[in-house]
Amino acid sequence: MHAYRTHTAGALRTADTGKTVRLSGWIHRKRDHGGLVFIDLRDHYGLTQLVIDPETPGFATIERLRAESVIKVDGEVVARSAETINPNLPTGEVEVRVRIVEVLSEAAELPLPVFGEPEYPEEIRLKHRYLDLRRETLHRNIVLRSKVIHSIRNRMIEQGFLEYQTPILTASSPEGARDFLVPSRLHPTKFYALPQAPQQFKQLLMVSGFDRYFQIAPCFRDEDLRADRSLEFYQLDVEMSFVTQDDVFAAIEPVMHGVFTEFSGGKRVSPIDQPMSYEDDFGKTIEHKGFERLTYVQSMSRYGTDKPDLRNPIVMQDVSERFRGGGFGLFARILEDSKNAVWAVPAPKGGSRAFCDRMNSWAQGEGQPGLGYIFWSEDQGGWGGPIAKNLGAEATQALMDQIGMGKGDAAFFVAGDPKAFAKFAGLARTKVGTDLGLIDEDQFKFCWIVDFPMFEWSEEEQKVDFSHNPFSMPQGGLDALLNQDPLTIRAYQYDIVCNGYELCSGAIRNHLPELMVKAFEIAGYGANVVEEQFGGMLNAFRHGAPPHGGLAPGIDRIVMLLAGETAIREVIAFPLNQQGQDLLMNAPSEVTDKQLKELHIRTAPPIKV
Amino acid sequence: MHAYRTHTAGALRTADTGKTVRLSGWIHRKRDHGGLVFIDLRDHYGLTQLVIDPETPGFATIERLRAESVIKVDGEVVARSAETINPNLPTGEVEVRVRIVEVLSEAAELPLPVFGEPEYPEEIRLKHRYLDLRRETLHRNIVLRSKVIHSIRNRMIEQGFLEYQTPILTASSPEGARDFLVPSRLHPTKFYALPQAPQQFKQLLMVSGFDRYFQIAPCFRDEDLRADRSLEFYQLDVEMSFVTQDDVFAAIEPVMHGVFTEFSGGKRVSPIDQPMSYEDDFGKTIEHKGFERLTYVQSMSRYGTDKPDLRNPIVMQDVSERFRGGGFGLFARILEDSKNAVWAVPAPKGGSRAFCDRMNSWAQGEGQPGLGYIFWSEDQGGWGGPIAKNLGAEATQALMDQIGMGKGDAAFFVAGDPKAFAKFAGLARTKVGTDLGLIDEDQFKFCWIVDFPMFEWSEEEQKVDFSHNPFSMPQGGLDALLNQDPLTIRAYQYDIVCNGYELCSGAIRNHLPELMVKAFEIAGYGANVVEEQFGGMLNAFRHGAPPHGGLAPGIDRIVMLLAGETAIREVIAFPLNQQGQDLLMNAPSEVTDKQLKELHIRTAPPIKV
Repeated sequence: MHAYRTHTAGALRTADTGKTVRLSGWIHRKRDHGGLVFIDLRDHYGLTQLVIDPETPGFATIERLRAESVIKVDGEVVARSAETINPNLPTGEVEVRVRIVEVLSEAAELPLPVFGEPEYPEEIRLKHRYLDLRRETLHRNIVLRSKVIHSIRNRMIEQGFLEYQTPILTASSPEGARDFLVPSRLHPTKFYALPQAPQQFKQLLMVSGFDRYFQIAPCFRDEDLRADRSLEFYQLDVEMSFVTQDDVFAAIEPVMHGVFTEFSGGKRVSPIDQPMSYEDDFGKTIEHKGFERLTYVQSMSRYGTDKPDLRNPIVMQDVSERFRGGGFGLFARILEDSKNAVWAVPAPKGGSRAFCDRMNSWAQGEGQPGLGYIFWSEDQGGWGGPIAKNLGAEATQALMDQIGMGKGDAAFFVAGDPKAFAKFAGLARTKVGTDLGLIDEDQFKFCWIVDFPMFEWSEEEQKVDFSHNPFSMPQGGLDALLNQDPLTIRAYQYDIVCNGYELCSGAIRNHLPELMVKAFEIAGYGANVVEEQFGGMLNAFRHGAPPHGGLAPGIDRIVMLLAGETAIREVIAFPLNQQGQDLLMNAPSEVTDKQLKELHIRTAPPIKV
Repeated sequence: MHAYRTHTAGALRTADTGKTVRLSGWIHRKRDHGGLVFIDLRDHYGLTQLVIDPETPGFATIERLRAESVIKVDGEVVARSAETINPNLPTGEVEVRVRIVEVLSEAAELPLPVFGEPEYPEEIRLKHRYLDLRRETLHRNIVLRSKVIHSIRNRMIEQGFLEYQTPILTASSPEGARDFLVPSRLHPTKFYALPQAPQQFKQLLMVSGFDRYFQIAPCFRDEDLRADRSLEFYQLDVEMSFVTQDDVFAAIEPVMHGVFTEFSGGKRVSPIDQPMSYEDDFGKTIEHKGFERLTYVQSMSRYGTDKPDLRNPIVMQDVSERFRGGGFGLFARILEDSKNAVWAVPAPKGGSRAFCDRMNSWAQGEGQPGLGYIFWSEDQGGWGGPIAKNLGAEATQALMDQIGMGKGDAAFFVAGDPKAFAKFAGLARTKVGTDLGLIDEDQFKFCWIVDFPMFEWSEEEQKVDFSHNPFSMPQGGLDALLNQDPLTIRAYQYDIVCNGYELCSGAIRNHLPELMVKAFEIAGYGANVVEEQFGGMLNAFRHGAPPHGGLAPGIDRIVMLLAGETAIREVIAFPLNQQGQDLLMNAPSEVTDKQLKELHIRTAPPIKV
């Protein structure tokens, strides 16, 4: 017989009745009942009920042992009586009558209970993570994470990708977020940096001819922490050669769709096999398959964000024309400035003064002066509220007809410079959708945000500047850079958004040095800036570079969505806390003078005033 | 038609003849021949021959283009004539007659040629790694690495393991090699450390109930570099709960055997399904299956090393008794000290004065006074050399009979304290085996080194000390610690060795705090030392810890062996050079004062004298 177990604690079934078995595991729960001791024995695989009678050697020890002690038992599998069967447990039809007990590890008093997993302060959970990780939810999340990552890997390999490792000790990059630095012992006063992402390396792999790269890559950013951000995180880093944007989408969609379908627990996932289409910013209709696509401009104007939650059916509309020169003086005056607009947030079934007042209060809580509205008034049998009164019945009806609202509905209005109010309008849309119960949460709804503008007008500097990533390929290539109004140029740059979370950014890269120089020139930078900031890559590009592009979905966020969690720390086995500390291992911590000396550095604590 | 290619450069076959195709790739080689230009077009997948005639638009451009430029061509697949078929190329029966050429990226003059991959200084190869990686051997090595890792992952998962990620920003550990440190911005004067290995985390995962963990884990050691060591390396980190040493072996052997068989290129791999046995250090015969096992003590005495290359058939023997009080005065005198011994290195077919003299010179080159020998002298028709002469014919024959040497053979002898000479004796064994061509290189020969002594006598400190890992479980447990001569206690600690390379260390861990305290007490350390050095783990062990153990084979070394390379940098895409520098990305490098200030550190360059 094996030294510790013949079966795991999740294995025994009715068919095993009569077998002599050996089990090892943790005491999950212990109950005294009619002179017998009942123990739920737990391991990674499940729970098995043990029954120990007072005649059993070691009974006294067992009575004394605390929960979470580790024991080994030999015993006989017996069927439970019909009334004691536990249908919620795979092993619930049997129990083990224990003959021999051995204590493998005795537990001291627990700082954090495991059974029942009552809520506990995060600090205690993190300090005793080895107990926290035994709790059912977190244990399941971490196993889910492992399975999701394995599934992603296999799906990538099925798509013809190979995984390559890129360096973790690398160079500090001149832009992006803040780097973590690592002092070099062999090269005094010099530092390695941890990668914010393997961006340059994955592009170098393409220039090296590797064609289809992926990596579940650890990334590091020394930024202040949020619930959905960690100093150290993983991304599914992807890059492909000789591809267009459609090829990148076609490669990654089956992976995302597949992994979400596999682990969604029955929730619906946006299909990828339906004929779809979208209209680009120049009015051209593009036919495609796969996830819904919308342009950055459309996303901002319809949803007030480039991370729209499409489970919310509300689509905002520009209703400026209904107010221009009209009876509602406030909006009419605002619209006199040509950059301003009025947007409507339709609120189906939101037609009550109480709801509209609540929204108005909420808006004030968000720092707004208020939120204009029109609602269906049952009392009046028509549209109510100050705006409707001022606009007049006919104009109000035309307005509400435009946005598809009728009896029992309402709508909210934001006015001003869309650049300034879009974000708030988006929040109002989310609030309306949530409060009116319009969001079908039983789904993962994906979309691509495409056609990010290459350039934007900087009010601050009064010049054209890059709007997102300067190293993306502009649509139309050199011709567009030479002959098109820069503010109308779109980049081959794209995001995947799911349920309102940005899962990744990506782009077709600019692999042509002369085109890169021209793009920087438009944004007001000399060729020397390109050379300084991107010299290594440029040099590689000058020795035969393939057209290439990719993206990098965030692994932690994907697992977070699939686990139904809202904090990234719930899907990481050993996370840092929000102050960037590992409370279990005591990191960061002080080091010895000898260590500092070897690294040729001294600490320089901030001076306290 | 796709924007860049209908086929890869490795895809076309005779069956494609007549098709119009589009290919993109690098100009691997270009030849002018009878007015036509022949190009070997290369991509990740292979080579295809292109034929371009002077009428083709773009012909002049193509003539001008350098090798490694990237082009796109449209053309027709035609069968090659019988005499121009290239049987060495999968696409060698066809070529593409080009109709349209487009340059995707023009290559400047190359600092490093790709075609033919002539030897080049490593500094240039690393500085232009994106060209180096296009070369056939390195490209193949990196692809091999990717496939080996994927195969290992799948084999581990087949064995019921799950992969979990452990932190990279973690705490500095008090022992082991030198840590890389990462200054904390949020916690002035404190530092994270990069993990030398996820040792504590994997044990914590066991204490957290995860049962079977693995991870292809990045590890970091700030040590001086060697050909087979890197600052940053990967290990297959493994840990299991409720297991004995045999369970660990049974879990990992199919993985190692499987992956080596899959990628050995036909070389034989030690079988794992044969009945085997070995004798432990107390004379007990242990039956088992799987790789050969030998104890640490046996390995040292038979091979002079704990990393024996078992492809070399030579087994050393202790022949002290043949010399004690005998005619060869030098050895007889040495043996008067009871700690001394004489070992023989048999040299089958080594029986010539010339070979023995060469070995003697080699030994002197290794800093030894010389190397005693006996050889079969054809002239004398018997054993020759000074030792034989002094020992006498009968004693010499008995000696040579003991070690199985006869006509045409020889043997070398080392005498003194085995602790001091074992390493040299091992080198002599290797040298003899190599020079006599005794090593069958067409195989991967594995063994386990087991039963490492728990303690050893420290001559320096004149006390018992730990010999290897203080945290391994002593065989016999607390009883052995209390009642056995410490120097005879063996640990459940083991290495895998393949062809003379240590692939990994591992152990069954000591999970019992009281046992750990006792072990430290034997080695002369107080309980406070255990508490200080290992307090976090001890605390976890006090809340219910399962018996557990594991190991951690080195990924880079496995790939190095399978690729037939002797330098680890040949199996890493972007390695640091031997000075720890990334010549391509310029790391380590100087950083800004702002960065240092944010991290609360100052540099303190060494003072030049």
